Amino acid sequence: MEISELSKDLKPISADTRADLVELRLREYLANKELRTGDVLPTELELSAALGVSRNVLREALSRLRMLGLIESRKKRGMVLTSPDILGSFERVLNPQLIDTTTLQNLFELRLVLESGLADLLFLRKTEKNIEELEAIVDNEKFIDDDVFRVNSEIAFHSKLYEITGNDTLKRFQVMLLPLFDFVLKNENRSVKSKVSHADLVQILKEGTKEEFVIGMREHLRPHFELLQK
Amino acid sequence: MEISELSKDLKPISADTRADLVELRLREYLANKELRTGDVLPTELELSAALGVSRNVLREALSRLRMLGLIESRKKRGMVLTSPDILGSFERVLNPQLIDTTTLQNLFELRLVLESGLADLLFLRKTEKNIEELEAIVDNEKFIDDDVFRVNSEIAFHSKLYEITGNDTLKRFQVMLLPLFDFVLKNENRSVKSKVSHADLVQILKEGTKEEFVIGMREHLRPHFELLQK
Repeated sequence: MEISELSKDLKPISADTRADLVELRLREYLANKELRTGDVLPTELELSAALGVSRNVLREALSRLRMLGLIESRKKRGMVLTSPDILGSFERVLNPQLIDTTTLQNLFELRLVLESGLADLLFLRKTEKNIEELEAIVDNEKFIDDDVFRVNSEIAFHSKLYEITGNDTLKRFQVMLLPLFDFVLKNENRSVKSKVSHADLVQILKEGTKEEFVIGMREHLRPHFELLQK
Repeated sequence: MEISELSKDLKPISADTRADLVELRLREYLANKELRTGDVLPTELELSAALGVSRNVLREALSRLRMLGLIESRKKRGMVLTSPDILGSFERVLNPQLIDTTTLQNLFELRLVLESGLADLLFLRKTEKNIEELEAIVDNEKFIDDDVFRVNSEIAFHSKLYEITGNDTLKRFQVMLLPLFDFVLKNENRSVKSKVSHADLVQILKEGTKEEFVIGMREHLRPHFELLQK
């Protein structure tokens, strides 16, 4: 077909764009109707008629909502709203090769901010058992003279701290960010050493105060924070 | 069709399940092949043949990757890998009506942890201009005698702090968590008052030390932390 001068700047609306739009409309619909977990969605037939789109486009959008954990198909009941796994799709995109450097840097800072702020939850929820587990990790460190083991122990120690917070979202978030440790360690400034070791932190957690822990953790992270200044 | 005794526990493999599987395989493929932003994916024809699935199922999975910001269709080049918007899909699921109470509670704690840990970034990146902006917000608070304005000012103040960190990921994350303020304020313990106000925090940020700010912010958040103990 000949495209006239006037219409040549109009771009064709692709199926993707329509799926984007339908997905957005459906999410707005869920929010505006104040639908809750367990509520049943209209049928595909109704939805595609109401939105004026083909079943294919509708299904594409529904498939996205299903991936996000917002809906589920239930036998006989149809599509039902579900409580989404809020970190599920975050997890799906955390491919360190694809994330741009600024975002990697931002996530690294985010981790520093989180760890600087853990003290209150740690003192609220620490138990004898998990302090013993921290001590076991620290005891093992004495025998480490290998970079791989050092990194693993670093990960084990900080992961255990997140675990002690008793906050599963926080803990999972930290596990997801672990692939960034490589990025961190590559940039590590070995000339700056912290005066507060893992063993010191455990000691404070065991017998010190929250305030001492806040100060200790910030000193422990200081070499990382100093890197940020550059 | 008659279903024999032996096979009746076998559940049919739905199209959803296949899209889940294809989506997972494609993500694994991107990670294992160490593909990077800008690399071109094989055509739909090749992918569906290699995976042994229909074009429809493949397209459903590709549509999900497109939504996650992992791929883009480019004219003439085909499907190209893109740098994902890591918070995009997180944003999509943050419907407070659908998120379960435990997760809401976890996110609230996450926010407290983040704010307790902001001091280093704030002192690293504060400028005269953004301290003036904080002062303007605080000045306005004197005239507030209305709950809605109080909440708005609360939001404006804390949002500005995140902005000063210069970390866009952190800032966006905080904006996304704003709908949770309702949840927070509903649960607020009005009997516990903090000794450190917004005005005090600005004063410390302006003329005090990082350490004073850490202590001040923790005192400012204390009424929230005390709620957690229950």
